[in-house]
Amino acid sequence: MSLLVVGSVAFDSVKTPFGRADKVLGGSATYFSVSASYFTDIRLVAVVGNDFSDDHFSIFQERSIDIEGLEKREGETFQWEGEYSNNLNEAQTLDTKLNVLADFKPKIPETYLDSEYVFLANIDPDLQRDVLSQVKKPKLVACDTMNYWIEGKLDSLKKTLKLVDLLVINEGEARSLAEEPNLVKASRKILSMGPDRLIVKRGEYGAFMFSNDQSFAIPAFPMENVYDPTGAGDTFGGGLMGYLASVDNITDETLRQGIILGSAMASFNVEDFSLNKLKDLTYTEIEERFRAFKKLTYFEDIDNHGWRKDIN
Amino acid sequence: MSLLVVGSVAFDSVKTPFGRADKVLGGSATYFSVSASYFTDIRLVAVVGNDFSDDHFSIFQERSIDIEGLEKREGETFQWEGEYSNNLNEAQTLDTKLNVLADFKPKIPETYLDSEYVFLANIDPDLQRDVLSQVKKPKLVACDTMNYWIEGKLDSLKKTLKLVDLLVINEGEARSLAEEPNLVKASRKILSMGPDRLIVKRGEYGAFMFSNDQSFAIPAFPMENVYDPTGAGDTFGGGLMGYLASVDNITDETLRQGIILGSAMASFNVEDFSLNKLKDLTYTEIEERFRAFKKLTYFEDIDNHGWRKDIN
Repeated sequence: MSLLVVGSVAFDSVKTPFGRADKVLGGSATYFSVSASYFTDIRLVAVVGNDFSDDHFSIFQERSIDIEGLEKREGETFQWEGEYSNNLNEAQTLDTKLNVLADFKPKIPETYLDSEYVFLANIDPDLQRDVLSQVKKPKLVACDTMNYWIEGKLDSLKKTLKLVDLLVINEGEARSLAEEPNLVKASRKILSMGPDRLIVKRGEYGAFMFSNDQSFAIPAFPMENVYDPTGAGDTFGGGLMGYLASVDNITDETLRQGIILGSAMASFNVEDFSLNKLKDLTYTEIEERFRAFKKLTYFEDIDNHGWRKDIN
Repeated sequence: MSLLVVGSVAFDSVKTPFGRADKVLGGSATYFSVSASYFTDIRLVAVVGNDFSDDHFSIFQERSIDIEGLEKREGETFQWEGEYSNNLNEAQTLDTKLNVLADFKPKIPETYLDSEYVFLANIDPDLQRDVLSQVKKPKLVACDTMNYWIEGKLDSLKKTLKLVDLLVINEGEARSLAEEPNLVKASRKILSMGPDRLIVKRGEYGAFMFSNDQSFAIPAFPMENVYDPTGAGDTFGGGLMGYLASVDNITDETLRQGIILGSAMASFNVEDFSLNKLKDLTYTEIEERFRAFKKLTYFEDIDNHGWRKDIN
């Protein structure tokens, strides 16, 4: 099934303890779509400036991503500059230049309107609803957001959440959206805002899924070499949504598998700057990482006959 | 098999966002032994003052814990006072009165010398080695430590680590002991100091086990009501070691099961102050929590035939 993503394409300048990269390809929609492209057909809606060259477009072509919806406008592409300290969990934003993203109005091409899976990456919640007013009748709408919108545009965000099936945000965002430090209580409160399911991205601690009748939690893959965490969250979302669209079946079971695949894709992504690692994976690598997750988290049932029951 | 624990028995005064408890029973050896007592026979070595009443002793008797090694001395019992803010992950220590613990010299009773499983809770590494010089030939020696010893007595701690099979510490301690922020690299470095295996306690993020040929990671049980995290780490250690001693078999498989049981015991412990919840569990509750961990972390294998392999 086709998966539509609406988000940003960016030039990132990133500094980590292991090196730096200047004006390299990034952006939520870029990471998401390259990650998802291993599993299903992707339709991309975003905007770039006229500094976006054929070379930059080539990654989408190589991954057979439909870029009819990638608008090229007069001006410069969105730029983000950030730095990670030894604690690779959180980036410090040094500079943001919205450029052509400043007046981005997502226009969904005619050929994308029947998309059955939709991912609204982190953009203005007004624009997220605008996208939903254009597409026909998707089977699954998922979205991301960030503290900037939680703090600055909460009413609009809450309107968007009423239209969304699955919210995929990080742990700090979940706590701040719910104004509640306990994650279970926060999750329950977020479901009352609209989504059927919440997936919480916990960085090096993995992911957590919560719905009214179950929860699922998984650690992240233990990585010896994390060079650049930029895009890990969107790469996770791409693996998850790409898999769901590929099996075209939304159950607890496929969501759990999707979370593992999302985590696997994210674990590859952090091994190099920009999309250097993510763009050239093999299916064997992805399957092996999936199996490694199984091995990492597997435990046998217990037989308790030897326990010390005599004293109870 | 018998499990010997050497550590502290304390009176704790604890304040959390949900209430307070004054001079209630606590201490590493207390939490550890009550938790482990559900699985195997426990031998306790610690020291208390003459303010430790028959009422305080009763919890050990109710759990059939051997207290021949619980020395009663002139003076007051060790006291700890701490406070947790909304972030229940870390306590702020407000006051510590060592009292009789100040010149504690663990004397292992004759009847304990054949203990096959030994847990050295967080005490001076000199004393930890002193215990090991007394016991005969244990099958498994595990130990805990804390930043106080890592920073103040590293040489002695390193001597202890050479004699230990399994180190059980929290994540901050692992990073600080290895002087390495990356957990996989830190774990590798710690194994080079002596232990065959390292288990890292990650609080609300679960636990991580690392050995030369494998790793295991598990999230914590998502808890809606965490009233008091005091003792969670020692309760975890008790469930883990109690189970290993009960099955008397140290393999990757039993270690993984032990980590789940330790996590289960810790998840009960945080639901009330002191040992209020931990001391009266039923086997059915423990088994159900174990199964709930299975349900929390389980995912099916994938069948990748539908993936988008045509473009690779």
